[in-house]
Amino acid sequence: MYGMIATWHMAVEGITKGRKILKDRGCAADAIETAIKEVEDFEFYKSVGYGGLPNEEMEVELDAGYMDGTTFDMGAVGAIKDFANPISIARRLSKEKVNNLLVGEGAEKFAHKEGFQRKNMLTERAKIHYYNRVKEIKEQEIKPYSGHDTVGMVCIDENSNMIAATSTSGLFMKKKGRVGDSPICGSGFYVDSKVGGASATGLGEDLMKGCISYEIVYLMKEGHHPQEACEIAVNKLDEELKERRGMVGDLSVIAMNNKGEWGAATNIEGFSFVVTTENQEPIVYLTKNVNGKCIHERASKEWLDNYIKIITTPLAREGGKIKK
Amino acid sequence: MYGMIATWHMAVEGITKGRKILKDRGCAADAIETAIKEVEDFEFYKSVGYGGLPNEEMEVELDAGYMDGTTFDMGAVGAIKDFANPISIARRLSKEKVNNLLVGEGAEKFAHKEGFQRKNMLTERAKIHYYNRVKEIKEQEIKPYSGHDTVGMVCIDENSNMIAATSTSGLFMKKKGRVGDSPICGSGFYVDSKVGGASATGLGEDLMKGCISYEIVYLMKEGHHPQEACEIAVNKLDEELKERRGMVGDLSVIAMNNKGEWGAATNIEGFSFVVTTENQEPIVYLTKNVNGKCIHERASKEWLDNYIKIITTPLAREGGKIKK
Repeated sequence: MYGMIATWHMAVEGITKGRKILKDRGCAADAIETAIKEVEDFEFYKSVGYGGLPNEEMEVELDAGYMDGTTFDMGAVGAIKDFANPISIARRLSKEKVNNLLVGEGAEKFAHKEGFQRKNMLTERAKIHYYNRVKEIKEQEIKPYSGHDTVGMVCIDENSNMIAATSTSGLFMKKKGRVGDSPICGSGFYVDSKVGGASATGLGEDLMKGCISYEIVYLMKEGHHPQEACEIAVNKLDEELKERRGMVGDLSVIAMNNKGEWGAATNIEGFSFVVTTENQEPIVYLTKNVNGKCIHERASKEWLDNYIKIITTPLAREGGKIKK
Repeated sequence: MYGMIATWHMAVEGITKGRKILKDRGCAADAIETAIKEVEDFEFYKSVGYGGLPNEEMEVELDAGYMDGTTFDMGAVGAIKDFANPISIARRLSKEKVNNLLVGEGAEKFAHKEGFQRKNMLTERAKIHYYNRVKEIKEQEIKPYSGHDTVGMVCIDENSNMIAATSTSGLFMKKKGRVGDSPICGSGFYVDSKVGGASATGLGEDLMKGCISYEIVYLMKEGHHPQEACEIAVNKLDEELKERRGMVGDLSVIAMNNKGEWGAATNIEGFSFVVTTENQEPIVYLTKNVNGKCIHERASKEWLDNYIKIITTPLAREGGKIKK
């Protein structure tokens, strides 16, 4: 028995490749790294890897996390610049005895010495998004932040080993050095091969307040089905934050247990995710929260075609030079 | 009713100052910030703030975290250099809507713009420790890492608001950019004013694998006394890591619930902590784990005098120049 689940439709090509590895009796670690690299490498995904949207200084700073649910090896990078595949660096760091979470220049030094591939991760398309947003901020006085589409995955292989991993360019227009939940064990990801794993996407600052991935695994350990665990965790954190803060950011999660059962939950409209199991080719679902229960609906061909069309539509810089 | 609990004997002067603030009806936020600044400012504490031991490049990189248990405001810095009081920057960051966890150069830029005090945090004494360790590593082929004495505190004020906070220079001889559990919500600290708070010290890489502070608060929420919650969390993580990895690092924790009841637990010999409540001046305890139960003993005057003597003993660089 094997399976994978991932946040967002953008994971579908990666999951398809990962599934092939699992089918050929490859390990969960290779399947998940391959799957996430696929997302990192695709330039039209604005929130992960190459083509990811930059921070307020127009630098693409990337976060990634990796955890082995059997050994509890954990590795992660935060605010790392100009390496092609942050997920591979996170996996490599998980093999270290200490120094498993590295950030900024230190993370870059480690990756350099380990021979990871350098790549300027800022695309022309991302620069157009940046300039257009700067213009909008000045003209409309809107909040600069948007986009928190982390790719997060959980995978189980035929040997019942489970891995969870994440990769993201974080909040568009974030401050330099901002780290979200994605490289944070317990918030962006958590996995225990005896139980199951979970991963989150949304507003990192809010997801961290509830250690949401750890919470989901805790709930699964107590006997909850992954779907229940996801709903309980999202609904509880959503309620707590509304009560205490009068507002809450986007909270979306996926989970799979060690039987290959899965779940997903969200507090927003339009959260999509991808699932595959031994008996099921990858499927893209859209989900919405109806009175605390999340209803999943298979994405239509029309929706899928439209998604690709939108993300690959040529982009023009608005209004030429930035007004002052 | 008010109270404070902190990891390690080094917190006693800070806790004494914090208690005065609480007694004068000050808030938990001011009490905890004042208490931690006291530890950060004292040059003889080798693992927090000024005088903290450096990374392998002889840079002092500091981590700090801060959480408000009522609003869930959270702020933290990781791998920040040459600011006098990381805890104050963490508290300031907790007031931001997003960008609450900043690392490295980005954290320094934020602190600079906000007017925080610059200070070269590398003391002559810390440099002697560094050179001596480099010599030991070369001569004895020992592992370079040691020292994980984070100051972590939980505080409750008369209005039943609770705050948890941490500050540390992290693992001696760590890699540049290494971030431990201290600035990580759920691992180094967690607090919910409806329940209680917890904080951890020890090997950050292992503490993160169990989201130990979140776990303790979860257990207290389920009805466990803080002492039970601390013991269950430490013993469980200790067992899991031994089983999965064949080894486990130092795990020490403190907790206080919203009735001012407190607890502490450890898997090492010689963990000390400090507690004060409305009815009790600060007391330093030493604790040890006897078959899963942690026995606390008040530190003797002799032990306390000896502690100060050891940490302030003049230090000489061994053997002059580094041998090759």
